[in-house]
Amino acid sequence: MTLPMVVPAPGLPARVRIHEVGARDGLQNEKGTVPTQVKAEFVRRLADAGLTTIEATSFVHPKWVPQLADAEQLFPLVSDLPVALPVLVPNERGLDRALALGARRVAVFASATESFAKANLNRTVDEALAMFEPVVARAKAAGVHVRGYLSMCFGDPWEGAVPVPQVVKVCKALLDMGCDELSLGDTIGVATPGHVRQLLTALTDEGADVEALGVHFHDTYGQALANTLAALQHGVTTVDASAGGLGGCPYAKSATGNLATEDLVWMLRGLGIDTGVDLDRLVATSAWMAEQLGRPSPSRTVRALSHKER
Amino acid sequence: MTLPMVVPAPGLPARVRIHEVGARDGLQNEKGTVPTQVKAEFVRRLADAGLTTIEATSFVHPKWVPQLADAEQLFPLVSDLPVALPVLVPNERGLDRALALGARRVAVFASATESFAKANLNRTVDEALAMFEPVVARAKAAGVHVRGYLSMCFGDPWEGAVPVPQVVKVCKALLDMGCDELSLGDTIGVATPGHVRQLLTALTDEGADVEALGVHFHDTYGQALANTLAALQHGVTTVDASAGGLGGCPYAKSATGNLATEDLVWMLRGLGIDTGVDLDRLVATSAWMAEQLGRPSPSRTVRALSHKER
Repeated sequence: MTLPMVVPAPGLPARVRIHEVGARDGLQNEKGTVPTQVKAEFVRRLADAGLTTIEATSFVHPKWVPQLADAEQLFPLVSDLPVALPVLVPNERGLDRALALGARRVAVFASATESFAKANLNRTVDEALAMFEPVVARAKAAGVHVRGYLSMCFGDPWEGAVPVPQVVKVCKALLDMGCDELSLGDTIGVATPGHVRQLLTALTDEGADVEALGVHFHDTYGQALANTLAALQHGVTTVDASAGGLGGCPYAKSATGNLATEDLVWMLRGLGIDTGVDLDRLVATSAWMAEQLGRPSPSRTVRALSHKER
Repeated sequence: MTLPMVVPAPGLPARVRIHEVGARDGLQNEKGTVPTQVKAEFVRRLADAGLTTIEATSFVHPKWVPQLADAEQLFPLVSDLPVALPVLVPNERGLDRALALGARRVAVFASATESFAKANLNRTVDEALAMFEPVVARAKAAGVHVRGYLSMCFGDPWEGAVPVPQVVKVCKALLDMGCDELSLGDTIGVATPGHVRQLLTALTDEGADVEALGVHFHDTYGQALANTLAALQHGVTTVDASAGGLGGCPYAKSATGNLATEDLVWMLRGLGIDTGVDLDRLVATSAWMAEQLGRPSPSRTVRALSHKER
């Protein structure tokens, strides 16, 4: 199998933890229902490929995300895996469902902008934070790790560019209420490397621990991997990615939403940064999942390598 | 039109010259013959979008690149444009044809590896360099600017990883014979940012002027833009790209070969780096060319923005 030559660069972390979102963020917008057994097999294959943090599903109300309405059935099928299996919880009801199944990691999802808070949560930014406060408190009291997703950290489809101080304010609120880590989302994919650096600098200048800052880039304009490099150069060690680049893009069927895990692993491997991932197995997994979904993976690495294998 | 927020980053050049290769490198592997008038219109639209260096065509023997067999007909249709219009010349015969039409910039194409020199030029690396020597000498004597393409600077499909000293040696030979600039090609797209930095460092350590070093990345594994960022951080100011990501990829119809000019412009614009390109017009040009070719552009930026416009 073709692999990149390993040439480290100075000032980068020795190890990166990939937060794999394919099974949740990647599948949640799929139109056709993916059978629970296929989802479970996907998660198991991802773990077998060496991913150590695999977001498994979401305990939002089935009305909002019908694709993940099988969370109660799916979670027990994968909970024996020796990996971290965070699940999304929108509120206390979702937390109850997750805790009842023994989830040890949960994630809440906030918005940096009023427009998206309104559109996605039907609340103001502050009302959403108030809703998450008891969720985070109860999760922490139960010894459960909490991630805080923050959408629209760089641009917003209604508001345009999002001021960095506004993002920092919401990040601080999430950290102050007890979130163990944040995922800074470029939900519409407009960020560029200087903007990434500016936001991370503002956050660490305010005292945030860079180890608690994950990045979540979308490839809508092809910027995700360059932005990731900028984040690594700032010391970030947690990067969200989606196996095979799964994740609906509203603009074009074959365009990608999320950064593809394989493209990320290719770069990290070339840089000599340890991820624990077996690229060969991961590509095979994404090629298999693409067959299940009936369309090619938008990941360039998956396309290049899965073709060669045939 | 959606645009990235402008946030400069330290240590990057104020201005980048994009060497647009879509009309030559992008089209040369197209199966169906593209009418000469369409090619001319493409070049004219690229110039209208603000690109200042547009590689127009190739004076190789028509037997090898049938798609560009109309070089004699095409060049006069665009030579009035107030932009640099380099053309590829493989040998003295090609140079004669280019000079007869008044070309002021030519490019030769060498290989960093013996395997590709043999496959592409049916010569050893040294034999190919010997063939270019009189081409470069005569071009320089005629006051013509000469670019030297160097293929397989990072990896080779037959030889695997390509040792940096081997690449440096061929680069030096091309600069010593009089090439005004080089284009360092990652022909199979395997490079990662540390490798890019290593090669550029080796070249500038040997005395090469970074202003004479262009980079030419392929997006086979999604690495092109991250590699470009690494090159900019080393001071590189010339970046090759192909409008709409045109350029055949042997592996998949919709996968890309060349870095898409639009994805590059998006990043540079976000970084506050001047290119002179009007992204709106460029996207419209690539959307138009995609229609001519009958398939969607592989550029993520073109897909995102041309959809929105409709």
